[in-house]
Amino acid sequence: MNEYLDGISRGNRVVLAKALTLIESTLEVDRTEATKLLGKLKPVIKDTIRIGITGVPGVGKSSFIESFGNMLTKQNKKVAVLTVDPTSQLSKGSILGDKTRMENLSKNPAAFIRPSPSGGALGGTTLRTRESILLCEAAGFDVILVETVGVGQSEIAVKGMVDFFLLLILAGAGDALQGIKRGIMEMADGLVITKADGDNKKKSAEARAEYQQALQLFRTDESGWSPPVLTCSALEHIGMEEIWKMILSYKEKTSKNNFWKLNRQRQSVNWFHEYVEQGMMTEIQQSPRIGKLIQKLELEVIQNNQLPVLAAEKLLAAFRRKLSST
Amino acid sequence: MNEYLDGISRGNRVVLAKALTLIESTLEVDRTEATKLLGKLKPVIKDTIRIGITGVPGVGKSSFIESFGNMLTKQNKKVAVLTVDPTSQLSKGSILGDKTRMENLSKNPAAFIRPSPSGGALGGTTLRTRESILLCEAAGFDVILVETVGVGQSEIAVKGMVDFFLLLILAGAGDALQGIKRGIMEMADGLVITKADGDNKKKSAEARAEYQQALQLFRTDESGWSPPVLTCSALEHIGMEEIWKMILSYKEKTSKNNFWKLNRQRQSVNWFHEYVEQGMMTEIQQSPRIGKLIQKLELEVIQNNQLPVLAAEKLLAAFRRKLSST
Repeated sequence: MNEYLDGISRGNRVVLAKALTLIESTLEVDRTEATKLLGKLKPVIKDTIRIGITGVPGVGKSSFIESFGNMLTKQNKKVAVLTVDPTSQLSKGSILGDKTRMENLSKNPAAFIRPSPSGGALGGTTLRTRESILLCEAAGFDVILVETVGVGQSEIAVKGMVDFFLLLILAGAGDALQGIKRGIMEMADGLVITKADGDNKKKSAEARAEYQQALQLFRTDESGWSPPVLTCSALEHIGMEEIWKMILSYKEKTSKNNFWKLNRQRQSVNWFHEYVEQGMMTEIQQSPRIGKLIQKLELEVIQNNQLPVLAAEKLLAAFRRKLSST
Repeated sequence: MNEYLDGISRGNRVVLAKALTLIESTLEVDRTEATKLLGKLKPVIKDTIRIGITGVPGVGKSSFIESFGNMLTKQNKKVAVLTVDPTSQLSKGSILGDKTRMENLSKNPAAFIRPSPSGGALGGTTLRTRESILLCEAAGFDVILVETVGVGQSEIAVKGMVDFFLLLILAGAGDALQGIKRGIMEMADGLVITKADGDNKKKSAEARAEYQQALQLFRTDESGWSPPVLTCSALEHIGMEEIWKMILSYKEKTSKNNFWKLNRQRQSVNWFHEYVEQGMMTEIQQSPRIGKLIQKLELEVIQNNQLPVLAAEKLLAAFRRKLSST
């Protein structure tokens, strides 16, 4: 335990990687150790920035993170890259490993890339990623990039653990405006049109104007911040500084109106709730009497003698009696 | 209640729509009614086919469903279209309503389109969609199309409630093969290249060959079925019959080796589990003593006096004591 704590506080990457593996483990003994480790982490003094990055497949997330991450390390920032990928529970990882995807950044001594853990449901992955963020911060990383894949529930999970949520967009990819779900657009604190280079430059500038106009239809949310639309080229390393400036300006503005802190507080409470929900469910399944009833009802459902929803209501009635009897 | 039952068994669309609204309601009184209604539904005698349809934004899901649905109704099938969209909890629905998206099909008397319910988490939406499928089947629909948006957790939810999972793909959309997550590819029982018309025809044929080759890398799963790759054009109404034939042939093959039935049984058990989990959590939050402890710990988390994961472990310890005391 002390080895972990020492190594992490000294920013030792091998120890950090080992600690992350401990956190991702689903073994009960490892979970106990992981919780202990988290409880002993020294509070992080310096300000960190947690940035969520999303966009449909093909938008160039990996290239963006490479270019953006390298720019940050040149400014003496230490950068950690984490990934939330609910599909990896099926495929046990992406076709291309994260380190191959970001070859340059993975060799950068000021950067740390952690491939998405495979296995487990989204809920579990989300909890583990939150803990991983804390570990990386304790190990001295200034900027945490949390990448998410595609469009869907993983965005909502990542939005719930970052300070700034960045949506990457491809100019003129078919029905651009219709294609991106309004729900995802509304979550974004900033939009960036990627691959704004070569023949794509003009189209990107047009798309930028279009999106900027579309965003005006949305109300400013509680943060008091209106999401800007920028363009960039990871290939030519253009636009990365502007994106970083946008994020810093978000931090400045929302720190003044207290939203930055409020957002982190809310995220902590949600984290607490999610952890409790998952833990309680595990407990209940291990309780002998209810465990037996579950088995009986399952059999009825399998034999088609009972509609799942009605079987569930029966079990809930038993659970209600148990709770009220104490 | 009898009005509901009568109307549904006679296939009355107005009553069906009302019953679906009852099912989607989160009010407790409506939930009780909805459960009662589900319990009284007459068992569906005739075989139905539940088809999940996914693909990234811009792939042409709506046009595909229009063309495919109209083809089915010409074969005297009654078709219901449902949507699972976790992002609608934020945006309260898509930019374009489902009925505008599928104008032709929505006017077809043998088809029924139900826009995605807005509000609520993915878990709740999933449970409601499962119940909606049952209602539509009781109302005499033969084919249920369940559309999902984008790439992510909603696919996993829809895969868990259908017999056949169809992945729509656009030929040559950037880094085609890298773009589609292997996890989603592995879930598919069939792939269809959309918009295979005009200038796109040759590219689509090439993509078809490419994907067919890529799919050979995957093992055949328990179903004993190898996912075919087809092409279609919703614009020219080409390829729809072949897709239907593929699905029927899947049904024939997996009915023989019993996988069809096994899959539905497993889905029922999962449905039961999901329903129980959500219901138990609601109960616990309403229990007075634990409810109070939750409030106290929440405050500590907000004031940054306690790490969320450690506060959660404290609550779980109290819950454990309560469960073991009975």
